Amino acid sequence: YAERLVPRSYIDLARQARRSYEQQIRLIVEHRKLPEQSLDENLIEQWLDEIAQMDSNNFQGNIGVGEREGRIYSSLVARRHALLSHGIGRSGDINAVQPKAAGSSLLNKLTNELVLDAIHILGLRTVTHALVIPMATGMTMTLCFLVLKKQRPKSRYVLWSRIDQKSCFKSILTANLEPIIIEQTETDCYLQTNISEFEKQIQQLNPEEICCIVSTTSCFAPRAIDNIQHLSQLCLTHSIPHVINNAYGLQSTKIVHEIEQSKRSNGRIDYIVQSTDKNFLVPVGGSIVLTYDSQSFDRLSHAYPGRASITPTTDMFITLLSMGKNGLLELVQKRKVLFTFFFDKLSQWALENNESVLSSKQFSPISIAISLKHLPNERLTELGSKLFTRRISGARVVKLGTKQKIESYEFTNYGAHSSSVQYSYLTVAAAIGIEESDIDIFMKKFNDVYQKLRRNETLDD
Amino acid sequence: YAERLVPRSYIDLARQARRSYEQQIRLIVEHRKLPEQSLDENLIEQWLDEIAQMDSNNFQGNIGVGEREGRIYSSLVARRHALLSHGIGRSGDINAVQPKAAGSSLLNKLTNELVLDAIHILGLRTVTHALVIPMATGMTMTLCFLVLKKQRPKSRYVLWSRIDQKSCFKSILTANLEPIIIEQTETDCYLQTNISEFEKQIQQLNPEEICCIVSTTSCFAPRAIDNIQHLSQLCLTHSIPHVINNAYGLQSTKIVHEIEQSKRSNGRIDYIVQSTDKNFLVPVGGSIVLTYDSQSFDRLSHAYPGRASITPTTDMFITLLSMGKNGLLELVQKRKVLFTFFFDKLSQWALENNESVLSSKQFSPISIAISLKHLPNERLTELGSKLFTRRISGARVVKLGTKQKIESYEFTNYGAHSSSVQYSYLTVAAAIGIEESDIDIFMKKFNDVYQKLRRNETLDD
Amino acid sequence: YAERLVPRSYIDLARQARRSYEQQIRLIVEHRKLPEQSLDENLIEQWLDEIAQMDSNNFQGNIGVGEREGRIYSSLVARRHALLSHGIGRSGDINAVQPKAAGSSLLNKLTNELVLDAIHILGLRTVTHALVIPMATGMTMTLCFLVLKKQRPKSRYVLWSRIDQKSCFKSILTANLEPIIIEQTETDCYLQTNISEFEKQIQQLNPEEICCIVSTTSCFAPRAIDNIQHLSQLCLTHSIPHVINNAYGLQSTKIVHEIEQSKRSNGRIDYIVQSTDKNFLVPVGGSIVLTYDSQSFDRLSHAYPGRASITPTTDMFITLLSMGKNGLLELVQKRKVLFTFFFDKLSQWALENNESVLSSKQFSPISIAISLKHLPNERLTELGSKLFTRRISGARVVKLGTKQKIESYEFTNYGAHSSSVQYSYLTVAAAIGIEESDIDIFMKKFNDVYQKLRRNETLDD
Amino acid sequence: YAERLVPRSYIDLARQARRSYEQQIRLIVEHRKLPEQSLDENLIEQWLDEIAQMDSNNFQGNIGVGEREGRIYSSLVARRHALLSHGIGRSGDINAVQPKAAGSSLLNKLTNELVLDAIHILGLRTVTHALVIPMATGMTMTLCFLVLKKQRPKSRYVLWSRIDQKSCFKSILTANLEPIIIEQTETDCYLQTNISEFEKQIQQLNPEEICCIVSTTSCFAPRAIDNIQHLSQLCLTHSIPHVINNAYGLQSTKIVHEIEQSKRSNGRIDYIVQSTDKNFLVPVGGSIVLTYDSQSFDRLSHAYPGRASITPTTDMFITLLSMGKNGLLELVQKRKVLFTFFFDKLSQWALENNESVLSSKQFSPISIAISLKHLPNERLTELGSKLFTRRISGARVVKLGTKQKIESYEFTNYGAHSSSVQYSYLTVAAAIGIEESDIDIFMKKFNDVYQKLRRNETLDD
Repeated sequence: YAERLVPRSYIDLARQARRSYEQQIRLIVEHRKLPEQSLDENLIEQWLDEIAQMDSNNFQGNIGVGEREGRIYSSLVARRHALLSHGIGRSGDINAVQPKAAGSSLLNKLTNELVLDAIHILGLRTVTHALVIPMATGMTMTLCFLVLKKQRPKSRYVLWSRIDQKSCFKSILTANLEPIIIEQTETDCYLQTNISEFEKQIQQLNPEEICCIVSTTSCFAPRAIDNIQHLSQLCLTHSIPHVINNAYGLQSTKIVHEIEQSKRSNGRIDYIVQSTDKNFLVPVGGSIVLTYDSQSFDRLSHAYPGRASITPTTDMFITLLSMGKNGLLELVQKRKVLFTFFFDKLSQWALENNESVLSSKQFSPISIAISLKHLPNERLTELGSKLFTRRISGARVVKLGTKQKIESYEFTNYGAHSSSVQYSYLTVAAAIGIEESDIDIFMKKFNDVYQKLRRNETLDD
Repeated sequence: YAERLVPRSYIDLARQARRSYEQQIRLIVEHRKLPEQSLDENLIEQWLDEIAQMDSNNFQGNIGVGEREGRIYSSLVARRHALLSHGIGRSGDINAVQPKAAGSSLLNKLTNELVLDAIHILGLRTVTHALVIPMATGMTMTLCFLVLKKQRPKSRYVLWSRIDQKSCFKSILTANLEPIIIEQTETDCYLQTNISEFEKQIQQLNPEEICCIVSTTSCFAPRAIDNIQHLSQLCLTHSIPHVINNAYGLQSTKIVHEIEQSKRSNGRIDYIVQSTDKNFLVPVGGSIVLTYDSQSFDRLSHAYPGRASITPTTDMFITLLSMGKNGLLELVQKRKVLFTFFFDKLSQWALENNESVLSSKQFSPISIAISLKHLPNERLTELGSKLFTRRISGARVVKLGTKQKIESYEFTNYGAHSSSVQYSYLTVAAAIGIEESDIDIFMKKFNDVYQKLRRNETLDD
Repeated sequence: YAERLVPRSYIDLARQARRSYEQQIRLIVEHRKLPEQSLDENLIEQWLDEIAQMDSNNFQGNIGVGEREGRIYSSLVARRHALLSHGIGRSGDINAVQPKAAGSSLLNKLTNELVLDAIHILGLRTVTHALVIPMATGMTMTLCFLVLKKQRPKSRYVLWSRIDQKSCFKSILTANLEPIIIEQTETDCYLQTNISEFEKQIQQLNPEEICCIVSTTSCFAPRAIDNIQHLSQLCLTHSIPHVINNAYGLQSTKIVHEIEQSKRSNGRIDYIVQSTDKNFLVPVGGSIVLTYDSQSFDRLSHAYPGRASITPTTDMFITLLSMGKNGLLELVQKRKVLFTFFFDKLSQWALENNESVLSSKQFSPISIAISLKHLPNERLTELGSKLFTRRISGARVVKLGTKQKIESYEFTNYGAHSSSVQYSYLTVAAAIGIEESDIDIFMKKFNDVYQKLRRNETLDD
Repeated sequence: YAERLVPRSYIDLARQARRSYEQQIRLIVEHRKLPEQSLDENLIEQWLDEIAQMDSNNFQGNIGVGEREGRIYSSLVARRHALLSHGIGRSGDINAVQPKAAGSSLLNKLTNELVLDAIHILGLRTVTHALVIPMATGMTMTLCFLVLKKQRPKSRYVLWSRIDQKSCFKSILTANLEPIIIEQTETDCYLQTNISEFEKQIQQLNPEEICCIVSTTSCFAPRAIDNIQHLSQLCLTHSIPHVINNAYGLQSTKIVHEIEQSKRSNGRIDYIVQSTDKNFLVPVGGSIVLTYDSQSFDRLSHAYPGRASITPTTDMFITLLSMGKNGLLELVQKRKVLFTFFFDKLSQWALENNESVLSSKQFSPISIAISLKHLPNERLTELGSKLFTRRISGARVVKLGTKQKIESYEFTNYGAHSSSVQYSYLTVAAAIGIEESDIDIFMKKFNDVYQKLRRNETLDD
């Protein structure tokens, strides 16, 4: 009918353009793979709108006489959520389809498939299932522990390679399990997984009493990637589940490679947990759990009681389509280059200032630790705060001797991942999304504050 | 300087208008109370923008050298989240303030206070703490159970007044606790908490072995509100924690009154868990936990490992300000009136069709059950599906004899909340947000489908 | 393909809902009539997005090698315009179709048809053509004069029934024509078109030298609607074009009736110009020109040189669909009721304060004038400014004796539409969109300021 | 008060960040100059929101009793316009301040100043006034002519250097003036202003009868920039106003230089009219008028009768702040480089295909004409349409012998800007915003279609 208003030939051209857009969508749904190239933001938004129209709360003339009908009071809230209201999950399965919400269900299923494709693209090619969970990594790890504990009713302990990040440790405590802390060993210039201590503990305890081993890949230098290959072999040998805390590890080709190798050598890995925000540049709120078999996947998905937010899923959907395969690979590649750039800058600076880089370029592929030998001990914390007021965020000063108690567990040198570190130091990271100019400005501001502190000068805010 | 471009007097008037807006904001922050009247959507949006500008990721010239710097890849995603990226929670405390995100932290703290005010307005005046948790009710109940279990290391059981909603039951199983199912007793026209069976079980088991009692207030008729007053006295007497599953109970003045009375009679209530979406018309994704003391509150807040999404919090912030105190009260009042309207319509219909209302107006204050005695048994499920294709969502047909197994637990008459129900029936609800026209249209369509099925006619889609 | 992810039956239901939306759109395009009911905002937004996708600048892979390719630098600007960039008009015809922009062209054509339908709904049933012009009424009237002047090369004068609104008067001057000012005559309580003076002027001048007669319908009391019926008969008799300045007249059933009657009595009306913002509650920026034959319409549309903004058209499209036929009629009906309410309130007030209503309820159907006999003359202007600082906008104090010169033309009692008014007065309007509470608050604040001024008290800001 | 919820030090840091944003805004308002760097989109949006809050329709508790109170029916429309509703202009002056709309007035005034700064940055340093008019170039030129005509009541003619763009020609006709068409002269490879014919016409006519001379700078090759320096000297000598149609000339440093030189040599230029969309990548809808003295500026601004849309102004405000000074200069620089790139590509192609470039690199600095000697004459138009269906927009085929009548004026070889062109040809442009990849893809697709047509093959769509 539009043809009465506008000539048919113009309409035809527009229809053809429309069809090429629809064709693109169809291919994505059919193959469940990221498009090579980025999709235009407005096309993504349109697609999302169309998906939302598939939910019953958006049907014209829908009458809701249940207790939950997806009504939204504020139109501002409705728009924020692209009119998606029903969340994901149903009847105690977070991946179940909701009859009232075909659109949300489709979005959830499809996004999990696209995430799996992204994971394959990033190099974890043997992973078979991916699930976006609308809880950040800590709570998601708790859920994994609960699922494993249910399978191993006699188990009580979690063997845990020390990493001084509270939420990882707390995720064990919240599951009402007892962590066995395995301290790192120190090598020349980094902290290494203490494999022999793991072996010793497994010998001492009844393996049935061990719920799982937790390894961590992404962490702050000088702590290195855990020795995933060894640990996964240990898990295989002793039939102990293995959970990898891979919080921001997807962005590192080195870490991805280590995990992939472990699996290819038949090592045991039950769940790999990673953050959506740290790896894919979305707001905090979600995590991704990866498994290598459908049984582990189903157990997890069935354990989640009730519905959950679709927001992290939607954010991933938008972001992955905005990146496309090429955009994703470029981001990861760029980060790798900038890490080396940062490492070299800091090494040079250390040389000039008689300090030293305390981490391994190979085994700490995201962050870098630099000694602060020459700063007055009492002014160390000032370094962090002065950097922060100069709008440098994320640089952490680790001061020796900090004690920390979490529930009944006490840690020495908390923050340093080891009771036996020798120098106070600063860690910084070249995480995904960093720009070269960020590193340049950091070097300038850091050096400025450092020199003043070293000369014991007063700094203003 | 604007005064060189536009006369001062016009600017002054604008400034005065601006000041009255700022005054309003200041009052809300100062008193942490909902405004009486609704706030304009665009003012809320502006305030949110200003809050977001307080987060370091939105500082101009901010340099991030940490592993999580709140970068957002897609501008579409950034806008959806009003540029808020850091989430809530830190170091294993979901209510902790983040130095990098003063704005998000403020939003979180303030919203929890506004939610507390809303709770007081709704009638739970003795509640002292409210916490928005970015997980729906099921998973939040699991978290409550884990917290209680940690306090009662010897406990294994949860005494559970049967309600046939999977996620409530699963929330116990996921916490690796054992539910003791207490069947409802049947009275004249509704299902009632079996208090004597509760007492019997407490006698039989060692109270130390009981992690907690779970009662449910909001549920589908003919199951009635649990007898909270009795149960909370039992909990007090035997020092057993009490968790109330109040999923959509805040919308009912009757339910609110029951809880408030229980507390005023010194009954024991540890956690009350309710849905944000079912009570406040926001998308699925959050729940609210209420406590009567800071210790219970802190334990819960400290148990949550790591960060979490701020989205449900933001949705509540926007929605509560959009409602204002008056809007909130009007919604609840309107629902109450429409429930009576719906109840009367169905009673009248039952009379005319020789069916009967199977629920108590007093003890099932949200939903209504209506018998389906005269429908051919084999066509019962058709009623639900035909209503659904006629865009009636939320009407549930409960067919006798359904068996359901959840893990190792088997239920008879699943969906009916009782092994001993006599008729198949339909339940519908007058939930918050329903309109009179919804009820009218429902009555018409339901009657139409019912009569055709009763006459055993064929219905097309 | 979505069916592999979500059950077919759910998809089918969604598809059916989608189809009913598409059906609605199809009907609107086919019949070019407003829907009875309001269309949901998000559906309108989606439709607009689809239309925008028909423009070549939004085709994926489009390559532009012309000088104007619809590129938009800022994504914020792009979103504001729903990605519509090409505007309307082409090659010197504002209603021409653009090959590069099938979507914009369709939107333009369709909106003009929907506006025509709205005009019919409002009661101007004999109008045959409507055109949204992206210029406000003043400049659009200039354009009409230029078009008429081209048809009447010998003409120099415009006979103009005085109305003290500068832009109407200036629209004649800008077209380089000479206004002949016909003063109003005063009757009992309002100002009336001076028909005999019009007749006299036509006698004196050569009709060929008269470009057109300009009448005004919507105006501030006590000036009344011009006597359109008489004037249009005069125009018919003497073959003089007639332009009606109907700025905000569409909102008044009385005014609409007068125009419709004039036409039905075969009176001559060439162009009726009205504001989009004043009648349809959109932002300032557009006007609507109505004609009764295609020739007048084409002349105007061909006269506009080059392209023009599509924004006012888009605003009308969204607004008309948001209103639906029923919403539009309700608005007009409500205004009528509130005008009477306001008139009665002011009459009552006048009685109590020994002032008088100076306008006719019948012939000034939108605004009301009220005498200010008892206010000290030197404090009259204060009334307006004090009301304004009390957030009453739009109330105008007309103080006798104001002289105003526009180019070479001097007016006595400017603002009062007449050289011979007797009292200073205040005018207020009950324009479309006003609420009952606005009137109540106005009465309170006005009375408060009035009494203080009458008692010669000092008022603070 | 926020400090009770979040530690003071965090708030302080946020406040400091806020202050640096406010400082930036203050500098822009104070100096009325573009910032060096681009402003973040969300900061621009926030600023705009704050400006809108200065308009009375957005004051909380505002009561409107006038006929135009800025009410907006659709919230979708309101958001599109950032709640700005009152437009610009008042009482017949488009640049006047509105008491009801301090925000809109400020936005208008400030934007005109920022546009002036942008004009200076682009090289027109002697311009003293800039005005964004919410009409595209054609209608704006008509307005300029009307203003000049009012100053020169005896004038009838416009001397016009032929350019085959309808809206430019029609802008003269719509002002009811008579164009005197001055044909171009042909030189070796481009069309040049026929200065001697201009001189001849001025001699023949009484200069008082000439309203103005219209020159055009930006045009499609092979027509060259008009000889502005000569023409402006002629205007000076004979006291004839001079209007420059500089539609998309601001993007060319060559054109800007020519105009600047003309003025520096004291040539006469009254109004320079340019498009906002063609030069600054905003949607169609506005133009910019530049003058060298306040009198010409005021005459124009006073001539515009009534209010007008603020949309083009807002678009310019957002876009200029999004660009910053550096972004603007980069765009222009990039275009210049890509023009040379395109010119060289086409020259090389012409060489290989025995065709020739028909335009001067120097005097046609935006577009390029290429001969089509070897294509079958009857298939020439197919070239354009086949390119279009291959998503190449903007390439124009000029076929010799086309006749065109506009009102009573007939043109030979319409489209070729000259009655005496020898070959049919294609023109393409390297306009602002073009990318290198656009040129590459164009060359490939053009060559493909060209070769097939040359071999007289059939092409499918």
